[in-house]
Amino acid sequence: MIVDGRKRVVIENITPQINCGRFPAKRVVGEKVQVQADVFSDGHDQVLASLLYRKTGARKWNQVAMQPLVNDRWQAEFVINEISEYEFTVQGWIDHFRTWQKDLFKKYDDGQNIDVDLMVGVNLLKEINERAKKADKKKFEKFISVLEGEDKSEAIGLALSEEIRELTDKYPDHNRATIYSKTMKIVVDRPKALFSTWYEMFPRSTADDSKKHGTFKYCQQKIPEIAGMGFDVLYLPPIHPIGRTNRKGKNNNPKSKKGDPGSPWAIGSKEGGHMAIHPELGTLEDFKELIKTAGEHGMEIAMDIAFQCSPDHPYLKEHPEWFKRRPDGSIQFAENPPKKYEDIVPINFETENWEELWKELKDVIAYWIDKGIRIFRVDNPHTKSLAFWEWVILEIKTEYPDIIFLSEAFTRPKLMYRLAKAGFTQSYTYFTWRNSKHEILHYMNELTKTEVAEFLRPNFWPNTPDILPEYLQYGGRPAFIIKLILAATLSSNYGIYGPAFELLVNEALPGREEYLDSEKYEIKNWNYKVKGNLRELIGIINKIRKDNPALQATRNIRFLPVDNEYLLAFEKSADGDTDTIIVIVNLSPYHKHSGWLELPLDEWGISESQTFLVHDLIAKDKYVWQGRRNYIEINPHSMPGHIFKVHRKLRRESDFDYYM
Amino acid sequence: MIVDGRKRVVIENITPQINCGRFPAKRVVGEKVQVQADVFSDGHDQVLASLLYRKTGARKWNQVAMQPLVNDRWQAEFVINEISEYEFTVQGWIDHFRTWQKDLFKKYDDGQNIDVDLMVGVNLLKEINERAKKADKKKFEKFISVLEGEDKSEAIGLALSEEIRELTDKYPDHNRATIYSKTMKIVVDRPKALFSTWYEMFPRSTADDSKKHGTFKYCQQKIPEIAGMGFDVLYLPPIHPIGRTNRKGKNNNPKSKKGDPGSPWAIGSKEGGHMAIHPELGTLEDFKELIKTAGEHGMEIAMDIAFQCSPDHPYLKEHPEWFKRRPDGSIQFAENPPKKYEDIVPINFETENWEELWKELKDVIAYWIDKGIRIFRVDNPHTKSLAFWEWVILEIKTEYPDIIFLSEAFTRPKLMYRLAKAGFTQSYTYFTWRNSKHEILHYMNELTKTEVAEFLRPNFWPNTPDILPEYLQYGGRPAFIIKLILAATLSSNYGIYGPAFELLVNEALPGREEYLDSEKYEIKNWNYKVKGNLRELIGIINKIRKDNPALQATRNIRFLPVDNEYLLAFEKSADGDTDTIIVIVNLSPYHKHSGWLELPLDEWGISESQTFLVHDLIAKDKYVWQGRRNYIEINPHSMPGHIFKVHRKLRRESDFDYYM
Repeated sequence: MIVDGRKRVVIENITPQINCGRFPAKRVVGEKVQVQADVFSDGHDQVLASLLYRKTGARKWNQVAMQPLVNDRWQAEFVINEISEYEFTVQGWIDHFRTWQKDLFKKYDDGQNIDVDLMVGVNLLKEINERAKKADKKKFEKFISVLEGEDKSEAIGLALSEEIRELTDKYPDHNRATIYSKTMKIVVDRPKALFSTWYEMFPRSTADDSKKHGTFKYCQQKIPEIAGMGFDVLYLPPIHPIGRTNRKGKNNNPKSKKGDPGSPWAIGSKEGGHMAIHPELGTLEDFKELIKTAGEHGMEIAMDIAFQCSPDHPYLKEHPEWFKRRPDGSIQFAENPPKKYEDIVPINFETENWEELWKELKDVIAYWIDKGIRIFRVDNPHTKSLAFWEWVILEIKTEYPDIIFLSEAFTRPKLMYRLAKAGFTQSYTYFTWRNSKHEILHYMNELTKTEVAEFLRPNFWPNTPDILPEYLQYGGRPAFIIKLILAATLSSNYGIYGPAFELLVNEALPGREEYLDSEKYEIKNWNYKVKGNLRELIGIINKIRKDNPALQATRNIRFLPVDNEYLLAFEKSADGDTDTIIVIVNLSPYHKHSGWLELPLDEWGISESQTFLVHDLIAKDKYVWQGRRNYIEINPHSMPGHIFKVHRKLRRESDFDYYM
Repeated sequence: MIVDGRKRVVIENITPQINCGRFPAKRVVGEKVQVQADVFSDGHDQVLASLLYRKTGARKWNQVAMQPLVNDRWQAEFVINEISEYEFTVQGWIDHFRTWQKDLFKKYDDGQNIDVDLMVGVNLLKEINERAKKADKKKFEKFISVLEGEDKSEAIGLALSEEIRELTDKYPDHNRATIYSKTMKIVVDRPKALFSTWYEMFPRSTADDSKKHGTFKYCQQKIPEIAGMGFDVLYLPPIHPIGRTNRKGKNNNPKSKKGDPGSPWAIGSKEGGHMAIHPELGTLEDFKELIKTAGEHGMEIAMDIAFQCSPDHPYLKEHPEWFKRRPDGSIQFAENPPKKYEDIVPINFETENWEELWKELKDVIAYWIDKGIRIFRVDNPHTKSLAFWEWVILEIKTEYPDIIFLSEAFTRPKLMYRLAKAGFTQSYTYFTWRNSKHEILHYMNELTKTEVAEFLRPNFWPNTPDILPEYLQYGGRPAFIIKLILAATLSSNYGIYGPAFELLVNEALPGREEYLDSEKYEIKNWNYKVKGNLRELIGIINKIRKDNPALQATRNIRFLPVDNEYLLAFEKSADGDTDTIIVIVNLSPYHKHSGWLELPLDEWGISESQTFLVHDLIAKDKYVWQGRRNYIEINPHSMPGHIFKVHRKLRRESDFDYYM
């Protein structure tokens, strides 16, 4: 059992480590992985530790010396350079030379005779020299002769020097090093996994005339405007043929009228299933054209993956075994009793034929990847088997590492987290319903300062076609702006269900958070010119995001104290802290609020007496501030929030021009 | 890779689980193991979970249905019946019958037609019936006929009944159950591991005349008194031959005078090593006699295991390779620079010959077990290899499961915890230096309400021969009583370095926490009749511990609010809450303090208006209390603490006699 009982160092509690190493942590190219571990040994010897990391499959480990924190905790970090799975572990060992040097200093300091100790040092150096490279052997020999020499003070000076330790540090004795028994994985995505700006739009509502069905060609015409607002992902609800059986009418009416287009999530008809395109939207060629045009404007098309079928889906005939039948021979519709979804048939993931099912669903994803899609928004993943998602995402990403999967799960927290662990690149969150300062602080802490930050990348949505939250129903235009600023600055990934949001649509079914006359069941002809619409402001906010790396990450948030329960303030910094943003929002869409904001001047390296420039990137105002506490007053009816860029240091004379 | 993709339940975050299952949790016979886990599935189906446990090696699992808490967390517990290693894991599955019943209720409640749903239920019942025992098959058939029958209201009534669910619950479908991938272990000790009362005494100081060297025979005479004070473990510092080379004189003087007995921890001389007895103490037969007499008085002898040698230890000649030599040929003494321990030579656990070393040290332990010892107090385990302890404790306990090892490690917290994980039955703690209310609350929370509670059993010592804390040096008699009450009631395991504690010895070396004229280096002739000595009080406190199961556990502590920073109050209950103790201590040894104590009346089932009896078991006073808040005033110069027994319910008329 015990290979070498002389390995005295133990390693515990390595982070990041999700479910004891069962799941990887997540990073994008360019991000750091900060690794911590408890590393210690019996006794008083000097322990050292190094972080070992490599691209999975590489033979050699890269080593980074870990630095001791307090209480036997050690830390090191490495930067992800490539889209590749990485793995890491930790190694710890006792450094006898450093132990000797540390003890020698204490004895010398205490006035003890250290003649024999110097001889011990000579022996240690000789031992290390056996491992040394040729180029260093001379140095070792020189050091040894000094330690053995007549001049005691020179010997002691050298023995206690950094110079000698730097040399010996190059040749650690790893013979009895402990390597932690597990390796932890890092799954790496492209940068868009961390920083993306989503716009959701129903392509069928894009025609220039309400009587017409929108098409990909009409969509294409909208691309410049949407890109102009600063979005880089255009997410389309399902584009597949819509079933006719039990097609839903306006406002989810179980009986549709002639001409009702039905819900795009009722996928499949005689025209085809998940690999087909709804004929009224256009052709596959049109769709590819749309992808191309989007690309030319710096946007990607995100496709909806909704693994469910209308009763007319070809799968029902081809694979009846994938669906449940009831004793009367009828098909088992989707239901969450007492709610019924008669236009949708769920796939039975407990089918005997699950292996073929899994392969088919994987083929659906691969089919659209082949057509140029790189981003998928997955509808209700929490009603499909977790084992399936873990398998299919790994399968797909092994072949196509740049694919992004967004989990649209609004369900119980542990299930949402498990989906993220299982591989989803980004996740919908409860942000949609977090409004008060306490709620936001608490939730952001959970998402960014706990283990969750390692495996879940939030994507904040103030609204979706399924959710018009009460806050937006009753908060008026200020509420929309508040949620926009929060979504866009709290989280580096955010999105809006576009037209309805930017046009301030706030009418819901009575007592519910469902849109009145929801676009899910009808074609809309949006009036983009509605007064007070947020198109310009959205453009400003998204430009601020694009210009400031501080807003292109989520874990870098730090909340700042304000002595008013309605004022929320936080700081984000990036680029070695050269880019610092402060966001301050009045969470009340109704009333003016004021308070004192406390600034982290010490961390900024700004003294109490020094003035510094802050630049409100929304209103384009500039202020000269001084001191730790600054008075803030926000009227939600003019602009409910500020996004300040902090000029932390005056670096050039010309900077003075700003305000002198 | 994936054996059955239809297993939809996932299980996470099982507790107790130490280092991802690498180490066992600890229990004694009769204790419960409360297991929790996150168990959930995709979708809305009804998930069920069971705890599986067994004695390690048993073929069949015992199953306990887990109960849902909130947020997908489940809980169950089992009781340890035998001194044996146990293992447990968790199983989760989807219960289709319960899902059906739950959905049926919602549909019925919503007024939907449920005819087909009843047929679905019939099919489910038929399926389950295939697994049913013969005795239940009739019942299934009857139920099926009711569900199929004409009387719809009878059918619905039965379908929604508990009766039918109780029947189907007996035959869960575990075909697609998920069993957590790991099993967690429980190491089980005898009850004394959890409840023990230690008295430390140097046998050489037991003679009736200060000029004489104490012997086991003198020790034997002391047994009735020590047992009379309520101690059940008598711990003796090392009883082996003491080295002569570099023997320490009084007060750790590097030069001893003739007649100085030396430190018992400088083990080994020409008379023998770790398996020998210091001739002046007596013979092996005398020692066995002492063990026997102790047993007759309900006490066990705990032996000191100090794996280190005096320069005269036979090991130095027999196994020179176990020790480090310096370049000048001299032996490497123990040191923690600038401190030197010239009378002690440490064993080099990095020796090439470590396997033989480990076996020899194991043989030492086994030797004394063979002589009747069942408890070992291990000296400075943190300066010996952790891998060694893990190995040797497992080796010994596999053969002798009733052995108790107490870890005397006063070192960094993670090292202390790792020693406990590695197998030590009990552990010394920082209690010795925890004096303020904040310190005690914080530390007790760490020991009893975090994961630490699962693997570390604290043993609280107010003093040791190595530590006379400042609090005892400067707090006078009240300080001794305060620490006595705290040690004896906060922790179910506690001990005192006896004579020096009970006789209120408080003189230290100037500016240090080391006893002046320490017994470690000289023979003492204690005057047991010193005025104000604590012998009687110790007897009272230990009797209270013996009489009240509430004080025989540590994790059962709950602190109670008192509005005074010097008053510490807590509750402990046991025996199904029939035994309830409240302890209130004034932590100031100098001043009288008073405050309002808040009682958990709701948990006790006592109303605000009801009176109830509390019985101060130290002062033997009785009080009738009423209401949530009670005024407490404690003068440390009379008695700095109360131990109240709470009479939570008046069960018999005769109980009224107490106060009417």
